[in-house]
Amino acid sequence: MKHFADLIYKEMKEKNSALVVGLDPNPSLFPNFLKNGTTPQEIGEAIYQFNKIIIDNVVDFAVAVKPQLAYYEVFGSEGIKALEKTLAYAKSVDLLVINDGKRNDIGSTASAYADAFLGDGPLSGNALTINPYLGSDGINPFIEKAEVNGKGIFSLLKTSNPSSGELQDIILENGKPLYLNLAERINEWSEGTIGESGYSFVGAVVGATYPGIATKIREMLPQTIFLVPGFGAQGGTANDLKPFFDKEGYGALINSARGIIYAYQKESNNWSEFNEDQLAEIIKSAASLAREQINSVRTN
Amino acid sequence: MKHFADLIYKEMKEKNSALVVGLDPNPSLFPNFLKNGTTPQEIGEAIYQFNKIIIDNVVDFAVAVKPQLAYYEVFGSEGIKALEKTLAYAKSVDLLVINDGKRNDIGSTASAYADAFLGDGPLSGNALTINPYLGSDGINPFIEKAEVNGKGIFSLLKTSNPSSGELQDIILENGKPLYLNLAERINEWSEGTIGESGYSFVGAVVGATYPGIATKIREMLPQTIFLVPGFGAQGGTANDLKPFFDKEGYGALINSARGIIYAYQKESNNWSEFNEDQLAEIIKSAASLAREQINSVRTN
Repeated sequence: MKHFADLIYKEMKEKNSALVVGLDPNPSLFPNFLKNGTTPQEIGEAIYQFNKIIIDNVVDFAVAVKPQLAYYEVFGSEGIKALEKTLAYAKSVDLLVINDGKRNDIGSTASAYADAFLGDGPLSGNALTINPYLGSDGINPFIEKAEVNGKGIFSLLKTSNPSSGELQDIILENGKPLYLNLAERINEWSEGTIGESGYSFVGAVVGATYPGIATKIREMLPQTIFLVPGFGAQGGTANDLKPFFDKEGYGALINSARGIIYAYQKESNNWSEFNEDQLAEIIKSAASLAREQINSVRTN
Repeated sequence: MKHFADLIYKEMKEKNSALVVGLDPNPSLFPNFLKNGTTPQEIGEAIYQFNKIIIDNVVDFAVAVKPQLAYYEVFGSEGIKALEKTLAYAKSVDLLVINDGKRNDIGSTASAYADAFLGDGPLSGNALTINPYLGSDGINPFIEKAEVNGKGIFSLLKTSNPSSGELQDIILENGKPLYLNLAERINEWSEGTIGESGYSFVGAVVGATYPGIATKIREMLPQTIFLVPGFGAQGGTANDLKPFFDKEGYGALINSARGIIYAYQKESNNWSEFNEDQLAEIIKSAASLAREQINSVRTN
């Protein structure tokens, strides 16, 4: 039986990488060769072609890709069709997919989300991000589905944004911030979910912009894989990443989106005229560089 | 300029109702006349036909319909296409739509969700439910879009499920539960969002299963429309609803899904053989009855 955390461990080892590449397509930022029309179908096709170029050029450097579902939903059913095709393509080249949807609900509705993203339907990837505000009732349906199907989940824990503290850092009567209480819950939810790698298929999202808390959370959650956004564009630096990893450099996945998929915009003011080969080369270099930057702190 | 809360007020008044009908389609529970195949397209079409029957028969009794997005996503792009057609149909008969997606993210991703559901694209309705765990950064993009487009949002506050207290009731250092702190934030977020009806386009989700806290929250948030799930199938009774309303019987929308859209399953063991006319009649009666039950506590 496959286990999501073991799959992640294997990919990290084989690719010598902790990089995840965000697939956040924004058609207005595409070079002209991808702009072939403005109907929903044409935009959906452009998104798929863009994602294919990304996938082909990051597959050697990235442990997984992470589609941000909002960027597909905004184009309705044609956007979702582009996501389906993207997921199928990633699967065809053996690249893991973490759907970033931050989904959350209870009971049969949570089960329906779990079926959608952790089942065997057209939107299913290898893992899904979820929001824990509803408590165990909102988490267990995802855990059950993930267990049966060898998939993973990442619960939001401490997010990368400036106002994440409004709720997440709020001090409880025991003097501790809320996110530490949630970390304890994540430990509870992880019982019986640990693979051979020593890691659980129940992961957590912890922003790179708060390295100060990473050390504490890494200690509290030694079996939890962290999905770490905020590296690069949101202001987190490579040095900030060190405390997220275990001593062997595993246990954390670092997401970079804009810094890689739109790297071509920093190459030249003339980027809209770039052709596919130019795009491919720039994206490949950016992914390779991001992997190196991250690796520089993984094992030192 | 239209204002979501004023639209709600007007519909409540004209229809003498506080009922919202959940559109949670589960094709395995459909009568046979709707089952015309098992391809995603055929299932999507069955969902749309089912929703059309619901809409036609609840439109006189319900202030709005509330599609639960998970039930559409589970069928991928064809499910989303069914949702698009459902939204267009509801609009064509002037029935308000609250998309229940509990979406949440930050910055440009939150903006993309807001564009998707509160813009003018194929998935846009009149309002969207959102999850507040990310704080203001995750709320403001939705508020901005709602303001510009005359739409509404409902932030989760205290959800109807048994484990909602794990995070939401946690006691803070000031001795108060978290949900009261969030209620204060909702008040802050509502500044400048009040319409002529005296209500804000920033609403809150508060479960019918916790009537004890409704009184307190109603006092704290006199300008907030509550979207109240948990009536009927989840165990909340009509009497539990009273504290959610203001003195004139406004300010709360009561959702019922299974009790109305699957009412036919209680009529006969032979429900799978029902035809469209039978279905229509049963759904209409159930919606009318739910409106009455709710009204019985609105104004007493």
